[in-house]
Amino acid sequence: MSLNIKKDNTKRIVIVGGGFGGLQLANGLKGTPYQVILIDKNNYHQFPPLIYQVASAGMEASSISFPFRRNFQHRKNFYFRMAELRAIFPEKKLIQTSIGKVEYDYLVLAAGTTTNFFGNRNVERKAMPMKTVDEAMGLQNAILANIERAITCSTQQEQQELLNVVIVGGGATGVEIAGVLSEMKRTILPHDYPDLDPSLMNIYLIEAGNRLLAAMSPESSAAVEKYLREMGVNILLNKRVEDYEGHKVLLADGSSISTRTFIWVSGVAAQAVGHLGTEHLGRGRRIRVDTFNRVQGMEDVFSIGDQCIVEGDEAYPGGHPQLAQVAIQQGNNLAKNFRRLLKGKDLKPFRYKNLGTMATVGRNKAVAEFAHIRLKGFWAWLMWLVVHLRSILGVRNKAVVLLNWMWNYVNYNQSLRMIFYPQKATEIKEREEREARMHWGEDLMKDETPKQE
Amino acid sequence: MSLNIKKDNTKRIVIVGGGFGGLQLANGLKGTPYQVILIDKNNYHQFPPLIYQVASAGMEASSISFPFRRNFQHRKNFYFRMAELRAIFPEKKLIQTSIGKVEYDYLVLAAGTTTNFFGNRNVERKAMPMKTVDEAMGLQNAILANIERAITCSTQQEQQELLNVVIVGGGATGVEIAGVLSEMKRTILPHDYPDLDPSLMNIYLIEAGNRLLAAMSPESSAAVEKYLREMGVNILLNKRVEDYEGHKVLLADGSSISTRTFIWVSGVAAQAVGHLGTEHLGRGRRIRVDTFNRVQGMEDVFSIGDQCIVEGDEAYPGGHPQLAQVAIQQGNNLAKNFRRLLKGKDLKPFRYKNLGTMATVGRNKAVAEFAHIRLKGFWAWLMWLVVHLRSILGVRNKAVVLLNWMWNYVNYNQSLRMIFYPQKATEIKEREEREARMHWGEDLMKDETPKQE
Repeated sequence: MSLNIKKDNTKRIVIVGGGFGGLQLANGLKGTPYQVILIDKNNYHQFPPLIYQVASAGMEASSISFPFRRNFQHRKNFYFRMAELRAIFPEKKLIQTSIGKVEYDYLVLAAGTTTNFFGNRNVERKAMPMKTVDEAMGLQNAILANIERAITCSTQQEQQELLNVVIVGGGATGVEIAGVLSEMKRTILPHDYPDLDPSLMNIYLIEAGNRLLAAMSPESSAAVEKYLREMGVNILLNKRVEDYEGHKVLLADGSSISTRTFIWVSGVAAQAVGHLGTEHLGRGRRIRVDTFNRVQGMEDVFSIGDQCIVEGDEAYPGGHPQLAQVAIQQGNNLAKNFRRLLKGKDLKPFRYKNLGTMATVGRNKAVAEFAHIRLKGFWAWLMWLVVHLRSILGVRNKAVVLLNWMWNYVNYNQSLRMIFYPQKATEIKEREEREARMHWGEDLMKDETPKQE
Repeated sequence: MSLNIKKDNTKRIVIVGGGFGGLQLANGLKGTPYQVILIDKNNYHQFPPLIYQVASAGMEASSISFPFRRNFQHRKNFYFRMAELRAIFPEKKLIQTSIGKVEYDYLVLAAGTTTNFFGNRNVERKAMPMKTVDEAMGLQNAILANIERAITCSTQQEQQELLNVVIVGGGATGVEIAGVLSEMKRTILPHDYPDLDPSLMNIYLIEAGNRLLAAMSPESSAAVEKYLREMGVNILLNKRVEDYEGHKVLLADGSSISTRTFIWVSGVAAQAVGHLGTEHLGRGRRIRVDTFNRVQGMEDVFSIGDQCIVEGDEAYPGGHPQLAQVAIQQGNNLAKNFRRLLKGKDLKPFRYKNLGTMATVGRNKAVAEFAHIRLKGFWAWLMWLVVHLRSILGVRNKAVVLLNWMWNYVNYNQSLRMIFYPQKATEIKEREEREARMHWGEDLMKDETPKQE
């Protein structure tokens, strides 16, 4: 590994993406002599496990998001830049972003994944994904606006389209949003919309495989399927979605379901990186790395988290699962390896320690699996709450989330069902992007002198 | 006043607008035999006095908003419709809304005001108003995005444009946003943006008159001016804004100030109502009503709050001030008058009881005026906090706002500085509006049978 010394001998690590992996890495580099630049297209870290609660109007977006700048206050030789990666020029040790270029000594790609529509243009245009807080806020707006419209629309057909919810993808996100929407149907609709028959709201969960939560044990799948069926969710297994047209989800078996609330959580693909040859990419567009998370065939470029696929770990020949825990542990291991580099020590390969997986579909209803233990029902649910509360960034956020959950548990009735459309937001974003293109050649670190001391 | 009986003898009151006045009226009709329909373009009530705290990323939008449907749960013979008023047909006792028509026995216009750009198209297109929660969220995005951009933009000129903030209008909203942004400059910028010189952020407050807070006493004006000057706000009195061009605010005296954060809180005009002749409109497009809040020359049509101007009250020959208290008291009086109508009693004219006015510019800094008392500094600020906390709708909101304020008071450092853009929100809204036009003729109350019992 080359150690090309630059300027004041400080080596610069550029991290692209402040999700679980990137944040863990940036935190792990605290106190080292490295200069750290974190690049993210948002100015905040988000907490994906609770995005479905934002989408269902059970939690504020701000409770599961945390501003990067706030997190890194008083951190020395650290810089945040709100930008998107456009291309890597490894021979120049330079990346091009949406707002300019920046040189690196080490580059770490940790940009995660995006929703995979498997090339279906209709689905991509019309379906609502649920990968980000922004998308969850949009989905919440859509769900609430559709119910409002259903009360006064002109035909029964249209009313049914507005009230049917179709969720495609039976993974954790799919079962969680199905569960929380069925709770909304049962506990909110009758009170908020007395002039609407709640039984008209049908929730469909469509999965191409033969069971929900394929990543967990068949027992957990069965338990979750039973919970959801009891809650009134229509579960369709072994069904493939072919297309979406005229407010209809078209299935491969020729049948169709009318809906204007079409939620797509069926798969992910790694975030694309410009100028990265296909020889670097594995399944699901994931960047191929060795057990040290080094991008194979590139110098001083690493990738961690969902965006990469580790090759060479015998325990996981098909790569690790795309989970928060993997990203966190890789970020942690890479931070330690950067410290070892400083001392001229050998790097340590990444070894995934499976801390277990869990999913919840409603109050007192969850499944959890650990090395030797499988839980379901109340105890799994309680564990789910504790684990997620612990993981949320920020004392204030923890307090607000806990308050929300307690409030909800007692009275089943959150007061967050509001349709917000930030005004002129689109214009501002468009202006941003337009003007950003004019700055293609700016250096993000041209004034490197930190004002902090 | 005619009493044309309809259907089951229930009289229908249609209230347009769920602000302070409309909400007070709707609440005041509880338990009466009237059927009440509340129409609002949003599905939530908002609390304007704290909008500036949302705009400055000190409070969540959801804390100062409350869903109408949640507020009216279990209320009998009450209906909410999310729609905008388009036109009134008084001869048919019918209104046309964005999603259909509805008949009324009594109509109450309580739609409030909108920002007045005084016909200046450039200002209207580019300036950011601050009348609604949606606008406040957009403004927050703009402020944060501009600061981010200022770090890496290419020229000093552009950096100054991005960091200068120009606020036009020295009323309560203007002084409050000026105050809170100068606190942001002092307490947040140095920590969140260590690679930016905070002294580059200049805050200008421009007022056409010769003092701030013209609605309060000269003593209060002077106190607030002193506070703001001490906090570093550049106050320009007796200055008129002529135009906005090329990122420059052009003043009537020929000078100009560069800015891309151009906040316009300089005046309001009553919400326009289609098919309402100019003979019904007074100053600022306000609907002329008598002391019973009846629209003059129209039968069974009332108007309350900022949207109307009461003629015939000797104590207020120019109409009442456009304040929350006036709207609340008018809503209250009208509810009582509707009850009197049922008993065949005479209506009581509206009499405004001035409960005082206040404004705050920062911690421990406020002014408050009551009949015989004038306060400033800490006690005025404390009173401001108590009065506003009491007025916020919902126990949960009160708790969250109090938590926020306490948190902020102790550590000066909220963690809400996130730029959110709800995804596909614009598409959903556009679709809504497009499809709404197809339903022009629908009856909003065609299925009147309440499911609630």
